[in-house]
Amino acid sequence: MSTQTANTTVRAYAAKEQGQTPEPWQYQPRQPRPDDVSIEVLYCGVCHTDIHFVENDWGMTNYPVVPGHEIIGRVTAVGEQVTQFKAGDMVGVGCLVDSCRTCSSCDNGLEQYCSQGVWTYNGVDRHDGKLTYGGYSESMIVSDRFVVHLPDQLDPAAAAPLLCAGITTYSPLRYVGVKPGDKVGVVGMGGLGHMGIKFAKAMGAEITLFTRSAGKIEEGKRNGATHVVVSSDADQMQRAAGTLNYILDTVPVEHDLNPYLSCLAVEGKYLLVGQLTPLNPPIEALPMILGRRAIMGSAIGGMPETQEMLNFCAEHGISCDIEMLDIRNIGEAYERMKRSDVRYRFVIDLATLKGDGQA
Amino acid sequence: MSTQTANTTVRAYAAKEQGQTPEPWQYQPRQPRPDDVSIEVLYCGVCHTDIHFVENDWGMTNYPVVPGHEIIGRVTAVGEQVTQFKAGDMVGVGCLVDSCRTCSSCDNGLEQYCSQGVWTYNGVDRHDGKLTYGGYSESMIVSDRFVVHLPDQLDPAAAAPLLCAGITTYSPLRYVGVKPGDKVGVVGMGGLGHMGIKFAKAMGAEITLFTRSAGKIEEGKRNGATHVVVSSDADQMQRAAGTLNYILDTVPVEHDLNPYLSCLAVEGKYLLVGQLTPLNPPIEALPMILGRRAIMGSAIGGMPETQEMLNFCAEHGISCDIEMLDIRNIGEAYERMKRSDVRYRFVIDLATLKGDGQA
Repeated sequence: MSTQTANTTVRAYAAKEQGQTPEPWQYQPRQPRPDDVSIEVLYCGVCHTDIHFVENDWGMTNYPVVPGHEIIGRVTAVGEQVTQFKAGDMVGVGCLVDSCRTCSSCDNGLEQYCSQGVWTYNGVDRHDGKLTYGGYSESMIVSDRFVVHLPDQLDPAAAAPLLCAGITTYSPLRYVGVKPGDKVGVVGMGGLGHMGIKFAKAMGAEITLFTRSAGKIEEGKRNGATHVVVSSDADQMQRAAGTLNYILDTVPVEHDLNPYLSCLAVEGKYLLVGQLTPLNPPIEALPMILGRRAIMGSAIGGMPETQEMLNFCAEHGISCDIEMLDIRNIGEAYERMKRSDVRYRFVIDLATLKGDGQA
Repeated sequence: MSTQTANTTVRAYAAKEQGQTPEPWQYQPRQPRPDDVSIEVLYCGVCHTDIHFVENDWGMTNYPVVPGHEIIGRVTAVGEQVTQFKAGDMVGVGCLVDSCRTCSSCDNGLEQYCSQGVWTYNGVDRHDGKLTYGGYSESMIVSDRFVVHLPDQLDPAAAAPLLCAGITTYSPLRYVGVKPGDKVGVVGMGGLGHMGIKFAKAMGAEITLFTRSAGKIEEGKRNGATHVVVSSDADQMQRAAGTLNYILDTVPVEHDLNPYLSCLAVEGKYLLVGQLTPLNPPIEALPMILGRRAIMGSAIGGMPETQEMLNFCAEHGISCDIEMLDIRNIGEAYERMKRSDVRYRFVIDLATLKGDGQA
């Protein structure tokens, strides 16, 4: 069936109030529009952002919140204006489901920088003003512009986190033009960091992983790092000083950037994708000035680049290292993520939602 | 005479101890080397850095210090290996008089980022280990690589500050590729800021000046700014939000960058050339991430780019606005500079040194 059908209730997992572990919930989806793609969700990665929204860490959560923005599914129907997708196609949806489509960012395929962007969950639909609900759900309806094709070569479950953790690290590395011979540092080896290592390596760079834990040295090398620097070891940090063309910092909590900045070579660029809070302690200006060094922020990626990233993964055999999750264990997964106890991403098998006794 | 001659004592102005106003002093110059250019100093701009060194604000001054790194002079003799200069040529010398000449920065004409760079004053000569002395002096001996040609079209006195204030603002604007139609903000309108306005305008940009003083609005427009934003006016700052492709921040003291950063458009770049102290209060990460915005440091410019900058000035009729200074009044000039009471650069007429009763 490739025509849109009337909606029935959608089963999902939602946190209904601050800090509540997501639990079974149902909602009435919107009527499909002519540009919409209806998707049966098969897999959904669990991002730290999900926890931040469930716990209202950023003070902007509207409840109930259905988290999930690393989504792989199968198309069940498409609207009459949709030409690039058909029922049966395997597709992905990431952090965004809409944008203004008229600003210069949208014109340039940089929908993530549109000031009217609509997040996949906890966003507000531009047409009906209702909250958007994410991928902890059996199905979704998404405008075709914000849907990407999943290449056949990619494992659907392992590809889910590419829609956030993947594109978040791919985009800045691509933007600055990482190329063979470049020396790239990666700070942190979680969901984002381990993807950053894989991408930079596939782009031909030599990777230096910075980690707080000496226990991650072997693991870092297995993931593709040539050098692993334990950041608490002053001698190791000193030896890395001034050596790197780029540093991708994936650490999601407040930390001191200055020791890492000192590892940039002249004209090096520091790519900040994880920390959303102010850069405290203050950044030292002198090393930036006496070396034309830069700090750049970057958020996920635009839709054309998200498709490019998936194609790149298919070409280079890259996917995320995941642990499959029964959605009924989402609370335990959140607790383990808070302890960094996952290698490297939980991915919900949505079959477990359908089998959990609801409806 | 174009052959090097034995040295006689050089008359200069030096601060002999911390905070002492520079006063007459003499020193024995080094013997010229085969790559050296001997220069009669005619004009020397007075940079804030001179005051910082005289007062040992950065804790690294070796006394006596002969300040001055915005130098215009006439060649009196050249060494046997010198092919690009001859006696009688009008030349400039900036902040650097030597570097390692073998690192990748030197190979790329980015001598200012060489870790072995030798500052024009208070540096240490790589050959004889002696202190270098700057342009508050009747003559200098400088290796030809660090000497530039003064185009005939430029007024020698007004060109002196181009060697520091000029290149410091030209280099980052050129590096990021300012082009017609770009919107460029300039923070501060002193020696650096007023040059930044002129350069960005000559590159075709539309200029927004940020100033703390409503009294500078007309002056800013005379200098080439299309818009002048009084930074203490929240409404004006709000209207500027998200509008600028680049911001050149020339303020030399600690200040909050965040209000200016919010004026950058998506993918905007913040060019930091003035503040050497840590970026306190802390930089907000979120606006950087949600707009791929960057902060980049930049220091003066390399020797090829310094020549390019002077040629650009000649082509576009650009020079520094200056106030001529009798070197005997250097103390008063320093006091006025501390009050920002100069439009926009003092330039010492070294004829006043020769006429001051020494020798």
